[in-house]
Amino acid sequence: MLLLHLSDVDEASWAKAFAEALAPYPVVRRSDSFDPAQVHYIFVWKPKPDAFDGLDNLKAVLSLGAGVDALMRHPGLPDAPIVRFVDDDLSQRMSDYVVAQVSMHHRQFTRFRADQAARRWSQFYPPSASETNVGIMGMGVLGQDAARRLKPLGFALRSWSRTPRTMDGVETFSGDQGFDDFLAGTDILVNLLPLTPETTGILNYETFGKLRRTHLAGGPVIVNAARGGHQKEADIVRALGDGTLGAASLDVFEVEPLPQDSPLWAIDNCYVTPHIAAISDEKSGVRYFSKILRDNEAGLGLVNVVDRTRGY
Amino acid sequence: MLLLHLSDVDEASWAKAFAEALAPYPVVRRSDSFDPAQVHYIFVWKPKPDAFDGLDNLKAVLSLGAGVDALMRHPGLPDAPIVRFVDDDLSQRMSDYVVAQVSMHHRQFTRFRADQAARRWSQFYPPSASETNVGIMGMGVLGQDAARRLKPLGFALRSWSRTPRTMDGVETFSGDQGFDDFLAGTDILVNLLPLTPETTGILNYETFGKLRRTHLAGGPVIVNAARGGHQKEADIVRALGDGTLGAASLDVFEVEPLPQDSPLWAIDNCYVTPHIAAISDEKSGVRYFSKILRDNEAGLGLVNVVDRTRGY
Repeated sequence: MLLLHLSDVDEASWAKAFAEALAPYPVVRRSDSFDPAQVHYIFVWKPKPDAFDGLDNLKAVLSLGAGVDALMRHPGLPDAPIVRFVDDDLSQRMSDYVVAQVSMHHRQFTRFRADQAARRWSQFYPPSASETNVGIMGMGVLGQDAARRLKPLGFALRSWSRTPRTMDGVETFSGDQGFDDFLAGTDILVNLLPLTPETTGILNYETFGKLRRTHLAGGPVIVNAARGGHQKEADIVRALGDGTLGAASLDVFEVEPLPQDSPLWAIDNCYVTPHIAAISDEKSGVRYFSKILRDNEAGLGLVNVVDRTRGY
Repeated sequence: MLLLHLSDVDEASWAKAFAEALAPYPVVRRSDSFDPAQVHYIFVWKPKPDAFDGLDNLKAVLSLGAGVDALMRHPGLPDAPIVRFVDDDLSQRMSDYVVAQVSMHHRQFTRFRADQAARRWSQFYPPSASETNVGIMGMGVLGQDAARRLKPLGFALRSWSRTPRTMDGVETFSGDQGFDDFLAGTDILVNLLPLTPETTGILNYETFGKLRRTHLAGGPVIVNAARGGHQKEADIVRALGDGTLGAASLDVFEVEPLPQDSPLWAIDNCYVTPHIAAISDEKSGVRYFSKILRDNEAGLGLVNVVDRTRGY
């Protein structure tokens, strides 16, 4: 039996789609009456405190989100394997967001918008993409997809990850010892890291101060499409104000929704979006997790299982 | 002898670079004393009315710009072949601009910026690039380069050109008979056409009304990186105001600099830049035209010669 436990999304619609895809395999929602001991799979999004109570026979926890940091902190999380959502459609949408923000900042959007507001015809020629270094933090599925899409645009790419990685056409850095060198050649910093104790708060004033300052007029830029926990918003406010950063695009925040009194809303070179970079699409989600469940029931095992020691 | 005749750019700097690249071939500027009959090549940008006076032995007119529409209207233009600037660096910069504008609009920039100004957390998920149709008008060197860079981003591409073209992964349309069908499936319209009598004013209210209205929230979008003569600015103002267009990115204008009293400056969903999409870089310009001149002197003939009957 598959139990759906979804907050803030249309659980009924997902349940209907799963029931159709998996029939005759039983699919239930929290509000249905069912025997918890019969639940072998739970599909979760923002689980409540009692989400896992009585689920003693779980074969897997299926996570709607690609990021499992919040789920990993759930005090009732059972020992069963956690399967993350890994999906081409999700990667595409995330890269759509990243490309739009990177290319907009590369083309000095903030400056030209200010000129327009002042009716100022001031010709300034942005550097070409091939002269501009984009640094991607996190080279999992999403980071690699972003790199694949930014590469044909001509950007010079570099990446930083926990463990060494190689990717054609990307200058790779890793670990604590590679971090400063990575930053020193980065004009536009894109964060696609998983949120772990090691990466919490990594987007801070000290990090910003190590970015390359000589290339982009206005200063280096950060784009955070991962988690609010990666960023210290007070540091971003300070860095945008004193020129340590030229601009920031933030899709995620320490507290979401971003509180009404956050100074980020009103900063001209801060680009706020309401955690919409990429959504897990229902159609692809149902397709993906139905296959996960069926394959596992058929004895083929699970894929994209979270490594609990590294946290993603 | 090569004569430089450049307005609004640093002619002295270009002259020095050409002299070094071509030595011992003689290079002169307008302010130098020289025998006009000795001038075999003239390198021009925004030529004055008397630019070609007395140049009776020209082997070629070398145009700094990729677009030669203004040059073609020069009443003193001699019969010599006109060589256009065709350059990877110029194409890259133009595509940088196009990609930034297309991806920004695809990601509903105007909407999210308005939400930010209102401190409104309103989750809305833009369609994925693969669901979004970008239509490119003009499939010369610049149009093809833009297509090559937009394709890996996932956009569904279509093109329209005067004569039939084929390009892998692009749905191609051509001629008057293909225009409406091209527009009917276009969400974001990118203009990279040469300016000719046939394409003058092609970005008009009737054209805008034929774009696909069902896909992008806010309405279809135009991006003009070619010439101001392509657009009817009164029609753009009207279309942006009544929702026929969702947004417009304009780098070129009917009159440049854009007059202080133009309504375009103050329209929120109009993105004005001061004709900076792509500049002909001095280094690549000198390299390119030095080779043109040397090859022609060596009897290899000219390349990228303008066809005067089609006008580009």
